[in-house]
Amino acid sequence: MSGLLWPGAHRAAGVLDDDGLVRAMVRIEAAWSAALVDVAIAPPTALVDDATLTALLSPEDVPALGRAAEVGGNPVIPLVALLRERLDRTGHHDAARWLHRGLTSQDVVDSALLLGARDAVTQVRCAIGRQVSALTGLVATHRDAPALARTLTQPAVPTTLGLRFAGWLGDVLDADDDLAALAWPAQLGGAAGTSAALVEIAGGVERAEAVRAQVAAALGLEEAAPWHTRRRAVTRIGDALVAACDAWGHVADDVLVSSRAEIGELAEGEGGGSSTMPGKANPVRAVLLRRTAIAAPPLAATLHAAAGDSLEERTAGGWHAEWETLALLARRTLVAAEHAAELLTGLQVHPARAAAHLAAAHGALAEQRAMAGLADRDPSPDYLGTARPQIDAALARAAARPDPRTPPRSTP
Amino acid sequence: MSGLLWPGAHRAAGVLDDDGLVRAMVRIEAAWSAALVDVAIAPPTALVDDATLTALLSPEDVPALGRAAEVGGNPVIPLVALLRERLDRTGHHDAARWLHRGLTSQDVVDSALLLGARDAVTQVRCAIGRQVSALTGLVATHRDAPALARTLTQPAVPTTLGLRFAGWLGDVLDADDDLAALAWPAQLGGAAGTSAALVEIAGGVERAEAVRAQVAAALGLEEAAPWHTRRRAVTRIGDALVAACDAWGHVADDVLVSSRAEIGELAEGEGGGSSTMPGKANPVRAVLLRRTAIAAPPLAATLHAAAGDSLEERTAGGWHAEWETLALLARRTLVAAEHAAELLTGLQVHPARAAAHLAAAHGALAEQRAMAGLADRDPSPDYLGTARPQIDAALARAAARPDPRTPPRSTP
Amino acid sequence: MSGLLWPGAHRAAGVLDDDGLVRAMVRIEAAWSAALVDVAIAPPTALVDDATLTALLSPEDVPALGRAAEVGGNPVIPLVALLRERLDRTGHHDAARWLHRGLTSQDVVDSALLLGARDAVTQVRCAIGRQVSALTGLVATHRDAPALARTLTQPAVPTTLGLRFAGWLGDVLDADDDLAALAWPAQLGGAAGTSAALVEIAGGVERAEAVRAQVAAALGLEEAAPWHTRRRAVTRIGDALVAACDAWGHVADDVLVSSRAEIGELAEGEGGGSSTMPGKANPVRAVLLRRTAIAAPPLAATLHAAAGDSLEERTAGGWHAEWETLALLARRTLVAAEHAAELLTGLQVHPARAAAHLAAAHGALAEQRAMAGLADRDPSPDYLGTARPQIDAALARAAARPDPRTPPRSTP
Amino acid sequence: MSGLLWPGAHRAAGVLDDDGLVRAMVRIEAAWSAALVDVAIAPPTALVDDATLTALLSPEDVPALGRAAEVGGNPVIPLVALLRERLDRTGHHDAARWLHRGLTSQDVVDSALLLGARDAVTQVRCAIGRQVSALTGLVATHRDAPALARTLTQPAVPTTLGLRFAGWLGDVLDADDDLAALAWPAQLGGAAGTSAALVEIAGGVERAEAVRAQVAAALGLEEAAPWHTRRRAVTRIGDALVAACDAWGHVADDVLVSSRAEIGELAEGEGGGSSTMPGKANPVRAVLLRRTAIAAPPLAATLHAAAGDSLEERTAGGWHAEWETLALLARRTLVAAEHAAELLTGLQVHPARAAAHLAAAHGALAEQRAMAGLADRDPSPDYLGTARPQIDAALARAAARPDPRTPPRSTP
Repeated sequence: MSGLLWPGAHRAAGVLDDDGLVRAMVRIEAAWSAALVDVAIAPPTALVDDATLTALLSPEDVPALGRAAEVGGNPVIPLVALLRERLDRTGHHDAARWLHRGLTSQDVVDSALLLGARDAVTQVRCAIGRQVSALTGLVATHRDAPALARTLTQPAVPTTLGLRFAGWLGDVLDADDDLAALAWPAQLGGAAGTSAALVEIAGGVERAEAVRAQVAAALGLEEAAPWHTRRRAVTRIGDALVAACDAWGHVADDVLVSSRAEIGELAEGEGGGSSTMPGKANPVRAVLLRRTAIAAPPLAATLHAAAGDSLEERTAGGWHAEWETLALLARRTLVAAEHAAELLTGLQVHPARAAAHLAAAHGALAEQRAMAGLADRDPSPDYLGTARPQIDAALARAAARPDPRTPPRSTP
Repeated sequence: MSGLLWPGAHRAAGVLDDDGLVRAMVRIEAAWSAALVDVAIAPPTALVDDATLTALLSPEDVPALGRAAEVGGNPVIPLVALLRERLDRTGHHDAARWLHRGLTSQDVVDSALLLGARDAVTQVRCAIGRQVSALTGLVATHRDAPALARTLTQPAVPTTLGLRFAGWLGDVLDADDDLAALAWPAQLGGAAGTSAALVEIAGGVERAEAVRAQVAAALGLEEAAPWHTRRRAVTRIGDALVAACDAWGHVADDVLVSSRAEIGELAEGEGGGSSTMPGKANPVRAVLLRRTAIAAPPLAATLHAAAGDSLEERTAGGWHAEWETLALLARRTLVAAEHAAELLTGLQVHPARAAAHLAAAHGALAEQRAMAGLADRDPSPDYLGTARPQIDAALARAAARPDPRTPPRSTP
Repeated sequence: MSGLLWPGAHRAAGVLDDDGLVRAMVRIEAAWSAALVDVAIAPPTALVDDATLTALLSPEDVPALGRAAEVGGNPVIPLVALLRERLDRTGHHDAARWLHRGLTSQDVVDSALLLGARDAVTQVRCAIGRQVSALTGLVATHRDAPALARTLTQPAVPTTLGLRFAGWLGDVLDADDDLAALAWPAQLGGAAGTSAALVEIAGGVERAEAVRAQVAAALGLEEAAPWHTRRRAVTRIGDALVAACDAWGHVADDVLVSSRAEIGELAEGEGGGSSTMPGKANPVRAVLLRRTAIAAPPLAATLHAAAGDSLEERTAGGWHAEWETLALLARRTLVAAEHAAELLTGLQVHPARAAAHLAAAHGALAEQRAMAGLADRDPSPDYLGTARPQIDAALARAAARPDPRTPPRSTP
Repeated sequence: MSGLLWPGAHRAAGVLDDDGLVRAMVRIEAAWSAALVDVAIAPPTALVDDATLTALLSPEDVPALGRAAEVGGNPVIPLVALLRERLDRTGHHDAARWLHRGLTSQDVVDSALLLGARDAVTQVRCAIGRQVSALTGLVATHRDAPALARTLTQPAVPTTLGLRFAGWLGDVLDADDDLAALAWPAQLGGAAGTSAALVEIAGGVERAEAVRAQVAAALGLEEAAPWHTRRRAVTRIGDALVAACDAWGHVADDVLVSSRAEIGELAEGEGGGSSTMPGKANPVRAVLLRRTAIAAPPLAATLHAAAGDSLEERTAGGWHAEWETLALLARRTLVAAEHAAELLTGLQVHPARAAAHLAAAHGALAEQRAMAGLADRDPSPDYLGTARPQIDAALARAAARPDPRTPPRSTP
């Protein structure tokens, strides 16, 4: 992800970028090493912890690993070779010998991707917490603020700003529900998903299962059957991420239209400037959210296309297409989550403009007159139907949102 | 969907096609009419049931409604006009007068789409039941049949046909879980999602809510806040449908490769012929499943793109893009579900060929030798790791699948 | 394509629907029969013309062919079987015997799809002709009408309505150029693209080539090497179609925003109504164009995904995914072309509102003041830069557009 | 693009990455500065050349610009601010004062993206040159090598390896044609595409046009009307890039299947290894090409989705979605172009295996027997139809390919 071509990218630094990936892969190898020793498969001298492995690597190794990844088609092969060589060179011969034994490249890549994606989701859900706070305030403050509903861009019937904001809130809470429900299975299946190498060195299935369980627990991932060519875990993550971007796309669309000069019901707290026009204030966050909403669905679709092309015991190409796609989608969603939180926190609301537009909409009560005529009674004093109970329900749902600090279900 | 251009389309007849849509829309109007009368908003003479409304329509009305739908941009406007005119002409003046009062076009289209999609999902889950039965048999029968695992198309280590089939079974059960978890909310919000017209004719919120609850119950949908521009219900359906197509795409890929002449480990029960080559037997169902897996993800992505472009109280264009997209995706998934069920039920397995390919793979035990050397013991008699416990777990999961006849959670 | 779920679909009747497909396939078989006889491969008694073949079929055959298409995975197999049987039954034994000899299913499906797509493109280009006429008028009429440029939705500098319309015109002419440049190769390659069967019955390559040339000419398609698994002809059509939908998406976006009550610079000639709100006038054509622009890109992407999955001598699944996808995209583009022509022809322009918004934009000349200061001279009387020459160039380009009645380059 | 998650990414270093973007933007500002001075709009002291501007920047500025790009939503605003400040600080006051005058952010971003994309396309076409050489050799060498055609994965009729390779060659040449035909218009329109600021400082349209012409020429781009919200230039690039990836996807599919152990007709020159299985040789380049073919179509579709959402004088969000999407697509295509060149150059062909599979296909001549029977003559000695003339035509087309060193049409 490029800082210049995807403004805001820096907010995702460390999450599913090359540095983050290397850290996650090292963490997995270290957890595996610890488990092999703990279950008494490898000798105590084979133990190597995360810090030791990390210390063997320098920042320059990361781009070199990137280049070397091409040879075998994945970054694990050169990483393991490099770590083994440096372990050997620093006298950790048994650690070098036992490193990665029983694992396969796909185990490390998949588990590392899920660790990174889970970090992204955790940060997204924190930002959603801020969005929910901001939205709760907006809904409560503008609960009864009269506004003109617009359908197909045209004036319709009365509504309230509070109900429009409650709609945004509902969208965001829907997205949060799906993110909270995600599963994070460890991928630990060996060359072809049979864990045969692990069972071989463990001398039996039971000790092999103990290793798998310990490693999953150490990583905070769920123990699961190998899923090398069963990719619903990945597509579910993609689906939940894109759904979050959809929710913010809705917010952005409303803000972009409402902050037009002729409408002026909303404005971003701090607008962006222009390289040539003095005094211009652009709704930058809404623009960048709209960007994200346009670009996200095809990425999630790519994950499905890859999943639907799964083949035998390891997919040729489909699997590889997932990696950067998932990383981009997760990172962009994280950037958008922060933009949405800032947008909502700083949103300026101009209820007088909203009320004026309702007042100017001469047809806004035509439906009410027709209905009152049908029911043969005088029109009611307002025409807001169930707006208030809907708002109350939305606020109650927001209040019941689980504390975002609660660990996700995949953490032991 | 075209019978000639999407072979198999006839299996989805009546589901989300024009006839099915009209039936669903009529059913919704009838349920609404009944509720208005039951809650004593409309007079008893306003009551018109499904059969009466249906009898007012003839098959020729359907294409005419299609043409008329263009004028206002949706099919509800001409349908309501036609029904009112014919109710009037047949002396049901009060029914004509009260028909559709308190509803809006989007209520009827959205609820009708969900009724149709739910029918599709119900049928898909029935077909999945047959798939699970077939797969359970395949897994059990070929549980220990030796086979060559292939990763990135190349020979890897030993596995069993049973484990490969268990992977398919897991994929199918994952898809089934997501389909079973779908929610089916009624859309009943009136012109701008405030139910203002309904509250106006009901004389208050309480009776309005009673109408909404009764209609949702009559349709077997969930009562829900209006979701005119909150579309996660739709994208969740799309995501679950495409995930099912992904699962069968995996099966199809494996069957297509395994049924090549040079491999010959699997074959479709009955192959398709050729227009020019005598004796050719093509893996037609696998071909058609692969087709579906390629075309499905972009349709689900279209639903997300539309959702992410939601605007104010009714979306201009995004909403309209959903209709045929959801219908196509649901109908194609239904067709694929039946193809997959037939493919799996009739699948021919040639374990001797599979065993021969394993035997011919001279490097298949190189990993085992390396591991045994590392562990300093003789290689185990087999090299199948956790294959058997994985198979047992997959079979147990299949056995625990809820009876597909159990009504989905949206049915009262 | 569904009349109810894709309002406007009826405008594409006969184009790439099941009836149209059968007609095209029959036409191809007849042209092939004629060429076999003309080149003296088949006896004169084998000749059967289009009308004779067509007369053998009844409307009920079309859905039956659809159902039968599933068995072999394409509609040609049952069509040829049906025609042969009926030719035989009506005494045309030689025609039955020689029908389709030397062809393969893919030849007939691909050539029929291209014939249909070419019809769609021809009709689209006719509609573009009407769009260009309307736009030329709009540009000329509002050439100097002052308006406020808006960038990122916010007031920017002055522009003219004429220049905005000239931008639409440029977009439409770009789309037209790509449609005009499309190639329409006949697909006539036999079972595996070697034309072996044809050469066998022809007794040599030369007479085989004569048949291929004659059939291509009869269909108005280009002679070309078999392209069974070289699909750029198809993806080029998809790319050009989606580009046309993009162009109208731009128009629709501008119309949707400009026809908002608070802006009111544009309006559709005739708006669509509402099922519940009296007096509402919706920008229906713009809404339906926006719908098309959202749904088109994923369809073109599906054609690329299929092309990129080409395999050996006939693709398993990718090819089949193209059929309905191309048909949908072509038909929807045709519907949109007519909507866009009507929208532009009937567009109402309110230059006074546009001028008022410019006048109200107090910052619109801030850039001019800065520039005049930089150049150390008084601000110019207007600030429209190259608007007029740009308009002149756009009008000149429109005037030079080839007469849409000129046959496309693929017609002999 | 990540080295670890998109193995091969390093091959695109400098092309449309952050460093490359900054260089291109600086080059554009320098060309503009030169033209303002040359046309005597700015004083000679305002001149600042590329080297001087470049020297003002250090590598650390690039990530800082990335972070700063978020504030105004694009990287030009902070770049211009930074350059002006440093020009001032280094005594180039007039240069600082005149820098970027008459331009807008979108001019610089769009022109820089096109410069980068053109570099990518140039490199892709060089790699295609190597592919064409390799393919020409493969076709010529294996021109008559008997092979089994396979349709829908199943044995069909005889063909030759030469004809299969000729199909790849045709695909690659089709892709090359589209890349060669691309247009590269300079984007130089000012704040709202009217060039008003430029005309203001130039004191008239004529001198303004002289500036635009000079800058376009200096950048090797075409002079063109501003295309801020007319995006066909961008989508055409995307369409041509994805078509190239499609072509290599076809090659990859064939190689992946043909290099299976049981088929063994082809193999990559140097295979990739495994992190756990000794002796494994994976078809890594084919795997990575297949990856690219899966991921490319949704990126091109994103460019269309953005284009179809164009709005007024600068699009809010759609434009921003293009940047990284185009960069990713161009860079990945470049990586794939090199992988494909290496794959084809090193491809190992095993004609004896191919011949054996044909010999083993007992039904391969059934069609021939039927045709010979129909024609009432003995079967021909071979059954290869037009394979040889097709091969000759493909080789002739390859030989006529314009020398890739010939500058593309956009270079003056």
